[in-house]
Amino acid sequence: MSGNRVALIGSGCWGSAIAKIVGLNVMNQPDVFEKEVLMYVYEEIIDGAKLTDIINLEHENVKYLPDIKISPNVIAVPDVVQACTNADILIFVLPHQFVKETCEKMASAVKPGALGLSLIKGFVLTEGEGIQLVSNIIKNTLDIETAVLMGANLATEVASEMFCETTIACHNPEYHGILSKLFQTPYFRVKVIENVAGVEACGALKNVVGIGAGIVDGLGFGDNTKAAVIRLGLMEMMKFTKVFLESDDISVFFESCGIADLVATCHGGRNRLLGEAVVKSMKYICHSSYFEPFCLSRLFSAAAFSYNHSSRHMMFQVLYSHHMAKNSCLVFTYFIYE
Amino acid sequence: MSGNRVALIGSGCWGSAIAKIVGLNVMNQPDVFEKEVLMYVYEEIIDGAKLTDIINLEHENVKYLPDIKISPNVIAVPDVVQACTNADILIFVLPHQFVKETCEKMASAVKPGALGLSLIKGFVLTEGEGIQLVSNIIKNTLDIETAVLMGANLATEVASEMFCETTIACHNPEYHGILSKLFQTPYFRVKVIENVAGVEACGALKNVVGIGAGIVDGLGFGDNTKAAVIRLGLMEMMKFTKVFLESDDISVFFESCGIADLVATCHGGRNRLLGEAVVKSMKYICHSSYFEPFCLSRLFSAAAFSYNHSSRHMMFQVLYSHHMAKNSCLVFTYFIYE
Repeated sequence: MSGNRVALIGSGCWGSAIAKIVGLNVMNQPDVFEKEVLMYVYEEIIDGAKLTDIINLEHENVKYLPDIKISPNVIAVPDVVQACTNADILIFVLPHQFVKETCEKMASAVKPGALGLSLIKGFVLTEGEGIQLVSNIIKNTLDIETAVLMGANLATEVASEMFCETTIACHNPEYHGILSKLFQTPYFRVKVIENVAGVEACGALKNVVGIGAGIVDGLGFGDNTKAAVIRLGLMEMMKFTKVFLESDDISVFFESCGIADLVATCHGGRNRLLGEAVVKSMKYICHSSYFEPFCLSRLFSAAAFSYNHSSRHMMFQVLYSHHMAKNSCLVFTYFIYE
Repeated sequence: MSGNRVALIGSGCWGSAIAKIVGLNVMNQPDVFEKEVLMYVYEEIIDGAKLTDIINLEHENVKYLPDIKISPNVIAVPDVVQACTNADILIFVLPHQFVKETCEKMASAVKPGALGLSLIKGFVLTEGEGIQLVSNIIKNTLDIETAVLMGANLATEVASEMFCETTIACHNPEYHGILSKLFQTPYFRVKVIENVAGVEACGALKNVVGIGAGIVDGLGFGDNTKAAVIRLGLMEMMKFTKVFLESDDISVFFESCGIADLVATCHGGRNRLLGEAVVKSMKYICHSSYFEPFCLSRLFSAAAFSYNHSSRHMMFQVLYSHHMAKNSCLVFTYFIYE
């Protein structure tokens, strides 16, 4: 096991935080990995200079993760085909809406037998095909085994080396060791399991509950109410997994990708901010311009609504309420308990 | 099922919040309950007047829960024997260190066949007998069936009618209906289950994790780290339950008394404040005067330490660290992952 070449596909805030970890781990384990890590960067001009040039000169993504140094063996390139050519491990960390077209560009260049790894939290809505797992899009477009990495990993805190855990899931146990070696650090603790779909669903669904938690905050409720929404949200996530993934494996919810990510999202995530903003602005969430990047919630709500119309699905009620008033929190809770 | 007489043994902040709920529920269900609820109040003099007189005149516990009205059918009495005589349901909500002596005073007056219900979160250390469940002390001293009520129920939020859930556990399913009728309101949602020891252990153990969460806050770590501590704490709670209660029933951790109370405690509870204060004061927790009321943590830590000395028991390491420095958070996490 040596000479594994790693490539990063994406370089936003989370991508840059991960580049810092992966860059150092690759450099420190020359018996396992090739030293150079190519990182695909969507080219932008910052103060007259190319972002790729800035990253390669200053070893810092000044736009998306300022003040955090990335090790110099991570090389930014603006061409995704160049980035992925010859790579044995492809780490995907870009907005979910760009995954399919990026994979299609890469398809002819990707090495047969390469391993994909998705760090993208969310589902993808494909025209006429409903909701899909991001890992399935990567796997099917590139014809490669695809793993996922999810956890309570707010990017700026990871970049600042505040302790956290993460969960990696890969069907093939032969890859578990190398994935652990690629990501584990003293402050970023890795657990590798096999349930890819379960881990990926956790990473997507917790955002819906995060919006609910933000609504609770916006309405001025306290820690009891928020804890109830988190608990009920966890129950909804389990139910969703059971129905749509046909999985009874609840152990995944005890990993970092489950309860820990849910708690972190409900307290520090941007979906929580969205929920709070919606209440405070008194706009309907479906009219909010904030909402477009978070289409997951709409999908989940619609899906939940379609499979059991009669009761128990709180988020639909909350998100689509036409009376976002003080008592809407109670409205959805009645809904659950009916 | 009628004429059930209810008594409250205790009247602090949580006792007064519960008196508000129980008083109204009893009054509104005359087919099930006797109207009058006697509440045992440890007599104190407030501005020259007896606290019992103030409560009975103003229907407010001005010392422990000011600005919250209790319905007038709740009558404060300073004599615990008077309070419990003829009662069919005895609700215990007083500090755990007074439970045994209070029960001994009541023993000859309690109606045979009465039902006890403990709202007390914590274990009791009895000289020479180790840790005991509060419900067992009540049950054994009074020779009555004893249920428990635990959940994400920060008292002042409950008193302000912010939505939350609670878990009641009673071995005998025949009591489930009446317990639900006694406590459920639109803002305080009751689920009744049978696992008394499991629910009670949740209510006690989450305080230990709450201290850990406070330490994380005091050290300036973020949401990722706190989420990791909550998750790892939950795993510790499960392990404790498995070893000491010999129970494999993890469903209790999905109720309000489990994950919800844990999350609320780690964000809004006084044990979190304790943990934070310890770090900020740089005192050792075992020397802190704050610590005496929270002896649970010491017990739990010692217990955890004794049953598995070698690894994985983070709270001992955190609480007894002689170097409460910036990196102690990392110290305990290494400890876990070894």
